[in-house]
Amino acid sequence: MLLAKVIGTVVSSQKEKSMEGKRFMLLEPVDLDGKPSGSHVVAIDAVGSGPGEIVLYASGSSARLTALTNKTPCDAVIMAIVDQWEVGGDVKYNKSEAG
Amino acid sequence: MLLAKVIGTVVSSQKEKSMEGKRFMLLEPVDLDGKPSGSHVVAIDAVGSGPGEIVLYASGSSARLTALTNKTPCDAVIMAIVDQWEVGGDVKYNKSEAG
Amino acid sequence: MLLAKVIGTVVSSQKEKSMEGKRFMLLEPVDLDGKPSGSHVVAIDAVGSGPGEIVLYASGSSARLTALTNKTPCDAVIMAIVDQWEVGGDVKYNKSEAG
Amino acid sequence: MLLAKVIGTVVSSQKEKSMEGKRFMLLEPVDLDGKPSGSHVVAIDAVGSGPGEIVLYASGSSARLTALTNKTPCDAVIMAIVDQWEVGGDVKYNKSEAG
Amino acid sequence: MLLAKVIGTVVSSQKEKSMEGKRFMLLEPVDLDGKPSGSHVVAIDAVGSGPGEIVLYASGSSARLTALTNKTPCDAVIMAIVDQWEVGGDVKYNKSEAG
Repeated sequence: MLLAKVIGTVVSSQKEKSMEGKRFMLLEPVDLDGKPSGSHVVAIDAVGSGPGEIVLYASGSSARLTALTNKTPCDAVIMAIVDQWEVGGDVKYNKSEAG
Repeated sequence: MLLAKVIGTVVSSQKEKSMEGKRFMLLEPVDLDGKPSGSHVVAIDAVGSGPGEIVLYASGSSARLTALTNKTPCDAVIMAIVDQWEVGGDVKYNKSEAG
Repeated sequence: MLLAKVIGTVVSSQKEKSMEGKRFMLLEPVDLDGKPSGSHVVAIDAVGSGPGEIVLYASGSSARLTALTNKTPCDAVIMAIVDQWEVGGDVKYNKSEAG
Repeated sequence: MLLAKVIGTVVSSQKEKSMEGKRFMLLEPVDLDGKPSGSHVVAIDAVGSGPGEIVLYASGSSARLTALTNKTPCDAVIMAIVDQWEVGGDVKYNKSEAG
Repeated sequence: MLLAKVIGTVVSSQKEKSMEGKRFMLLEPVDLDGKPSGSHVVAIDAVGSGPGEIVLYASGSSARLTALTNKTPCDAVIMAIVDQWEVGGDVKYNKSEAG
């Protein structure tokens, strides 16, 4: 899984039938300091995340292993909202303290 | 999924039998401003997209999760035509306004 | 799928049993002008391609979705020989005109 | 599989149900000298690893092939703790001698 | 599949149960001249390869399509030992002549 920030949404009216009712979220991968890192990805949200939140997303066939994305042409899914991470014992990110 | 622009088509008369009747579209990934970003990919079109449109495509095994691509050696499928995306509340792309 | 040129072959006498009788082709990815682009890949040929031809190959689990590669440890398969591609209405490559 | 060092953990209270009770470990890929190399990855720990240890992790659908990660949206799993590696007969890393 | 040289081994005493008895080989990808190219990968050996040999390895779910790796969290497998490859009719590598 990778850490990313929810930065926006993508709207599509014409899509594969199984994709109807799913929310396409724009994700920006982040580094261990929470700074932008790498190219954006579009993922389906399986956990009710919102703009500005840091999430974990899974790619590939594992992105279909949620009730929402099962049997759909989805290759990236948000499967966790991140509260905190620490490196070497130091808290590097805490959601309640994030700007 | 990734954002990309449909920029052309690929023609093949000699191909795996299960690929007959499918349209191979040339895709150019785009960044959040809709500008070219990264190398082209060839995807099968499952949603009736056309040249110049911005689409979402799925890669890997998820590319086989449409009625059209099921059980075929397809690793990239266009599964949505994009109408709009927004970042931080600002509309960055709107199809009806795109040049 | 990606565009690539067949540039050679790989010979192996000691291999996984299910790989016996398959042809390993050396592929060089090409850009939209047909020029070399990126690192080589070794793929199994499912469509009778030959040296110098431009082909499409599929990667990952989709590479096993041909009669030839089914249930084998194959992660790249040539599933189409390319006749032509066009970008923005202009033919960028045509097999019969290629040098 | 890739070599990586366990450098921290990620905490998430709101996540896909099947992810409950799993530990998200922050991994930093390492080169053959054990030095940081490449971007971090978040993996589920299936072998009881801890901070500072060098591990092997598997990606993609193979990350679901442990009892812990089976049928979950997990795309990276720690499936071995590394004791030692050697290159050309020389021990390049030995856990008991590592700083 | 990709060409790589077997350069060493990785030892792990604490690992996922299904991985017991498998040999973890350190691979260094090589270019068409047999020179090092890209980052190392750890693969399970399904064909009895040894140090210094050039091999083909498969990644992703296809790495589980050998009797040895079936149903294991393995994402890279050596499935062929390379005898020779040629590019444009010229032999670029021949095992019996390799230094």
